[in-house]
Amino acid sequence: MSLSVSELWSAMTAEAREYGRNEPVLASFYHASILNHTSFAGALSFHIAAKLDCDSVPAMLIRDVFNEAFASDDSIVNAAARDICAHFERDPACDHYGMPFLYFKGFQAIQAYRIAHWLWLQGRESLALFLQNRIASVFDVDIHPAAVIGSGVMVDHATGLVIGETAVVGNNVSMLHSVTLGGCGSGQGPRHPRICDGVLISAGAKVLGPIVVGDGAKIAAGSVVVSDVAAHSTVAGVPAKQVGALSAELPALNMDQNISDES
Amino acid sequence: MSLSVSELWSAMTAEAREYGRNEPVLASFYHASILNHTSFAGALSFHIAAKLDCDSVPAMLIRDVFNEAFASDDSIVNAAARDICAHFERDPACDHYGMPFLYFKGFQAIQAYRIAHWLWLQGRESLALFLQNRIASVFDVDIHPAAVIGSGVMVDHATGLVIGETAVVGNNVSMLHSVTLGGCGSGQGPRHPRICDGVLISAGAKVLGPIVVGDGAKIAAGSVVVSDVAAHSTVAGVPAKQVGALSAELPALNMDQNISDES
Amino acid sequence: MSLSVSELWSAMTAEAREYGRNEPVLASFYHASILNHTSFAGALSFHIAAKLDCDSVPAMLIRDVFNEAFASDDSIVNAAARDICAHFERDPACDHYGMPFLYFKGFQAIQAYRIAHWLWLQGRESLALFLQNRIASVFDVDIHPAAVIGSGVMVDHATGLVIGETAVVGNNVSMLHSVTLGGCGSGQGPRHPRICDGVLISAGAKVLGPIVVGDGAKIAAGSVVVSDVAAHSTVAGVPAKQVGALSAELPALNMDQNISDES
Amino acid sequence: MSLSVSELWSAMTAEAREYGRNEPVLASFYHASILNHTSFAGALSFHIAAKLDCDSVPAMLIRDVFNEAFASDDSIVNAAARDICAHFERDPACDHYGMPFLYFKGFQAIQAYRIAHWLWLQGRESLALFLQNRIASVFDVDIHPAAVIGSGVMVDHATGLVIGETAVVGNNVSMLHSVTLGGCGSGQGPRHPRICDGVLISAGAKVLGPIVVGDGAKIAAGSVVVSDVAAHSTVAGVPAKQVGALSAELPALNMDQNISDES
Amino acid sequence: MSLSVSELWSAMTAEAREYGRNEPVLASFYHASILNHTSFAGALSFHIAAKLDCDSVPAMLIRDVFNEAFASDDSIVNAAARDICAHFERDPACDHYGMPFLYFKGFQAIQAYRIAHWLWLQGRESLALFLQNRIASVFDVDIHPAAVIGSGVMVDHATGLVIGETAVVGNNVSMLHSVTLGGCGSGQGPRHPRICDGVLISAGAKVLGPIVVGDGAKIAAGSVVVSDVAAHSTVAGVPAKQVGALSAELPALNMDQNISDES
Amino acid sequence: MSLSVSELWSAMTAEAREYGRNEPVLASFYHASILNHTSFAGALSFHIAAKLDCDSVPAMLIRDVFNEAFASDDSIVNAAARDICAHFERDPACDHYGMPFLYFKGFQAIQAYRIAHWLWLQGRESLALFLQNRIASVFDVDIHPAAVIGSGVMVDHATGLVIGETAVVGNNVSMLHSVTLGGCGSGQGPRHPRICDGVLISAGAKVLGPIVVGDGAKIAAGSVVVSDVAAHSTVAGVPAKQVGALSAELPALNMDQNISDES
Repeated sequence: MSLSVSELWSAMTAEAREYGRNEPVLASFYHASILNHTSFAGALSFHIAAKLDCDSVPAMLIRDVFNEAFASDDSIVNAAARDICAHFERDPACDHYGMPFLYFKGFQAIQAYRIAHWLWLQGRESLALFLQNRIASVFDVDIHPAAVIGSGVMVDHATGLVIGETAVVGNNVSMLHSVTLGGCGSGQGPRHPRICDGVLISAGAKVLGPIVVGDGAKIAAGSVVVSDVAAHSTVAGVPAKQVGALSAELPALNMDQNISDES
Repeated sequence: MSLSVSELWSAMTAEAREYGRNEPVLASFYHASILNHTSFAGALSFHIAAKLDCDSVPAMLIRDVFNEAFASDDSIVNAAARDICAHFERDPACDHYGMPFLYFKGFQAIQAYRIAHWLWLQGRESLALFLQNRIASVFDVDIHPAAVIGSGVMVDHATGLVIGETAVVGNNVSMLHSVTLGGCGSGQGPRHPRICDGVLISAGAKVLGPIVVGDGAKIAAGSVVVSDVAAHSTVAGVPAKQVGALSAELPALNMDQNISDES
Repeated sequence: MSLSVSELWSAMTAEAREYGRNEPVLASFYHASILNHTSFAGALSFHIAAKLDCDSVPAMLIRDVFNEAFASDDSIVNAAARDICAHFERDPACDHYGMPFLYFKGFQAIQAYRIAHWLWLQGRESLALFLQNRIASVFDVDIHPAAVIGSGVMVDHATGLVIGETAVVGNNVSMLHSVTLGGCGSGQGPRHPRICDGVLISAGAKVLGPIVVGDGAKIAAGSVVVSDVAAHSTVAGVPAKQVGALSAELPALNMDQNISDES
Repeated sequence: MSLSVSELWSAMTAEAREYGRNEPVLASFYHASILNHTSFAGALSFHIAAKLDCDSVPAMLIRDVFNEAFASDDSIVNAAARDICAHFERDPACDHYGMPFLYFKGFQAIQAYRIAHWLWLQGRESLALFLQNRIASVFDVDIHPAAVIGSGVMVDHATGLVIGETAVVGNNVSMLHSVTLGGCGSGQGPRHPRICDGVLISAGAKVLGPIVVGDGAKIAAGSVVVSDVAAHSTVAGVPAKQVGALSAELPALNMDQNISDES
Repeated sequence: MSLSVSELWSAMTAEAREYGRNEPVLASFYHASILNHTSFAGALSFHIAAKLDCDSVPAMLIRDVFNEAFASDDSIVNAAARDICAHFERDPACDHYGMPFLYFKGFQAIQAYRIAHWLWLQGRESLALFLQNRIASVFDVDIHPAAVIGSGVMVDHATGLVIGETAVVGNNVSMLHSVTLGGCGSGQGPRHPRICDGVLISAGAKVLGPIVVGDGAKIAAGSVVVSDVAAHSTVAGVPAKQVGALSAELPALNMDQNISDES
Repeated sequence: MSLSVSELWSAMTAEAREYGRNEPVLASFYHASILNHTSFAGALSFHIAAKLDCDSVPAMLIRDVFNEAFASDDSIVNAAARDICAHFERDPACDHYGMPFLYFKGFQAIQAYRIAHWLWLQGRESLALFLQNRIASVFDVDIHPAAVIGSGVMVDHATGLVIGETAVVGNNVSMLHSVTLGGCGSGQGPRHPRICDGVLISAGAKVLGPIVVGDGAKIAAGSVVVSDVAAHSTVAGVPAKQVGALSAELPALNMDQNISDES
């Protein structure tokens, strides 16, 4: 269902050509961001580095780090492509592939995090923390570089997202703005949640402590979750309690933030 | 009660002259933002375009789009004036007319949205989406350009506000930071709420799905609202339930975020 | 337990030398931000002013204001030092003193607020409001310059924090992102909460109206608090109710956002 | 021979479309500078104001001044068009109309001077002097705003050109880089030269004092001219003396910097 | 004849107030550059540092160096004041004291050189060379930091001025744009000229090698001087020869670039 | 005598480490410009692209073009290395290899020209002309991208240098600021001079028309040369005539701008 990186790149360049023709004010923007590049990876490192540009570490230097990461681990670019497809498939307001790439702070923040995470794994903690700060300043998204995040991830609207140091997020997860994967305690082990595949975490939900949210679970908007959530269940409330029956669906994929009628 | 555009402009220029005299560090700022201009519309296009400036689409180009919109539809400028009056009348911390114009991210974001919305109605969807992204980056407010928003609107503090594609907001509505008018489902019709006149939506409340919040209703802070709210009622909680009796007042106008004693 | 300003400065410069050696990409950043300065105060005014830089009021001018404030009231710099120590002691992810100074939006926003507050007390309200806007734009933190905030304060992650005009915050308080100390009513007296010493306010909690949150109280994540909270108690929920027994601890110091088992 | 403004604009937009197609790196540049505008005047005010942009007086404000000048005196735009044609006709290295507009510092400086001169005539001497400084900083060309300069003027390469307060330059004059029209004395009357129509002043020549350089005269490179120059004569040397016979040609039009064989 | 620093500062602030009232577009510029400061030295370090601002060494850092130099050697600020008076007295186009300070590249470059020279004397050669490059980039004036320059110096128009490593320039000297004090040979001793007091060096003149130009000498425009010039004599030509009789005047003070009739 | 690229790179990095230790204000600058890179070519593309950065074509895009050129033709990087050695050997004021690279506008302009020339040869004339304009704006040096320039070239001080479209410059040539290699006529063939190996062209000299300046010739400062110059001869004056006897030396290498005694 998801496009390959090269299929995605073909689709994005075709869109950019069409949109550039139709909106001359943005022709330049489409060219600089997409059409001037020969690959998805090249465009991605250019576009995200330009967003993170600052006097202390200019965009050119940041881009060098991105390219180094892309060259050493091609799963980073593959994950970015799957994240774009996730937006395209799940968000009714997203009707072309270029939208997350060009416009969505959540997508952009996650890709920058992937580089910070790669740096963290290389032992370059200072630069990873520097990037974390730039991401928080530019995108209003605060993800600790040690956190582990899968692919096919969609972070919609994104402002205020916080993901802590020992959090783990699986594949095909959808999160909305103002979601917190927060910590409890200060011991040596995990202090943050593990979110399994296909989970939907609705706007403003706080998931706190080293708990597990099972595959295909759904956390309603504004919930505060402080204990494990069973796979394929829906939880809601402060503190969150299970509502409704189990479901075989993956709620992350249809993005229904509502909580079921029987709540 | 609200000032006309020209009355407002007179008041703002008088204030700017006085404040410029009293605070020399800002004399330049008051001049560039207000006193150098011959009309409220001219100052508004200058000030908001300067905020949205970026390398890809510089302020001068953005201002041309603002001026084009103002020239074709003067309701946009009138709405901006009513929004300023709304802040002045409802916010005890706002004691001069220039404050929302100069300093309040919520006011500034709404005016930029009005241009994005005008572009959307003209069929210039790419540029509207570009502006949506700039607004989200600069003001931390994410409003889909297809959403419909009335006048006399106050968005206080603003960080984290999200308003989805099919949302409708009436006149004289007050919303605080971190409010979400979010979507449910992915069908063809409306997926987001309709907020009627005079409604107050307190900090962090999530209003989800194609529901109606009636005239003069009040939604308490932190509530998650997933079903219709009767006019002049107050709702609170996760999920939100009616609390207290009906009231004839317009809660948006007095901004009492509290929920009544009987809750 | 807390370091003196000069002990802190020694620790920070030693760290910066070490980190600069290990991460050449950031050598310049450590030098410009820390090592080029002869005192903690000099580095602080440089670093925060650089963050607040804008065309209308360039960093050099802002720094002059910072230096004027530091010279007239040395409690401002002392408070900054205690805030850094608060992060170091309470945040397991913070393992060197330079981190809050260099990277944490919450710390940076609070120090900028301290200058806006000093200006407010000097009667320079315009410039205080200008700074409030810059702080809100740059750090996504909106603190009215008239609010009163103690020292040893930690604001973790910070995005979306709102503190209103008549709020009072004591010493050794910890707050997380998206916390609101909001107002009710529009009379002459206090409209916002008073937060006593050692309180922990977890992520997304809204504390509304002229209530008192007693020493050592803990407010759970996502709570909406509309009435007084007893010292050393824990409250949770929408609206918040007391959960669990009283405790002699200061929850701000261990940052356990969880609510107790019996909730 | 010269194109009308509208013919020129048609030619420039056709070129920009073609060049934008052939060089994608610059597609954006051609769009922002030329194709996004509906008239030559609109593009001119945009492009030159963008060059003069500075923190103290941003491009948007400068553009407002340009547009005010263009609206009050359409000879300014006509002169700009004739200047472009002068470059196209006289410079073998200039093979399309967009080159002077987009790339030649001499053309850009002269157009900015025209606005400074208009301001001077309006009695707005401070802003005229401010612009003179910006022109000197950006284009390395120092023209006093009180100087009077005709149209069809070409200033090739331009670096180091200086034209003093009481200088007068006619139509169809060509000047190269490092030319000085300098002053002698400090009385009330003219202190600088009057250059008549069709004159060529070659690279590095200094023309000093209230002298007259007659129609169609030619001043050789590196000359220092301190007395009147007869029409259609050629002068060379330090101090300059007449060389060769009179000629009926306009040396400005063929740009032959050489001095005749008999020198 | 020359004003004291405090008289000059009074005159400049009075002018700035008047000009700011008359030209609102620049009110901000006059405030930021002059009126916001409490002393001439404070304004000078602010204004020149702002001109030299670059990503690698931001204006705030440069200003710290300026202030350090001013504090250690007050002759630097005194010389700046005398340079302003030199422009005011000698340049008919300069009719207020703020003009050199605000607008003249030659004045600004000389003041920045004075700091580079101070650094050179301190043994901080790297930073001196860095500043030399910034001065050359920003003002198109290339002065080696080891050169020695007096006070009451006027450099008019300035573009292209070059002063070499072992050059010495006395007091009350006037130089125009494109003047070179260049070197010959590569031995250990002086390789560049010594220019005595009251000398006028007209536009484009090249003075080369370790020669002496005596008090009150005048070098005509475009001259190439390769041997000593007697005091109070005038030289002209390529190579320069004495023209006219000796004169008791100081040609630097009346700025008559012309060469005498008998040439 | 000249270092290889790798020897040069070793020397430059050793210097940068030492200078960075001794001048903490510039530690960052040395790191970003030199030490962060793994090769001379990488540092060169970074440093020059950063200088040429502009909104329309950001540094990252320019650097991509540099890297493409370096990859396709390694003579470009070799020539840059030889140019640095030329400065080091010939300029008494240049005592370390990093100086031309970091600080000298002439060196930087020539390297940027080499890329513009490479683009011109590829048929990408628009981008070559765009770069020519950026070089002229940033470095005050105007070199037509079609001109042909050898290696071991030193352009000292550089402001005002102009080299026309059909000019040819050999190896080991030294030119000073304000030199012009200008054109005569408008035919199809060469219109500009050919400068052979080892020539010295002193400050402000104008060499005009399709003439030949033979190997090891020397052109005195301020000369205007309009006819061929014999190898190993010295010419001076306006117009230039031969002075002194032939010499076997290469005057470019000792940089003696003086003209011989018998002139």
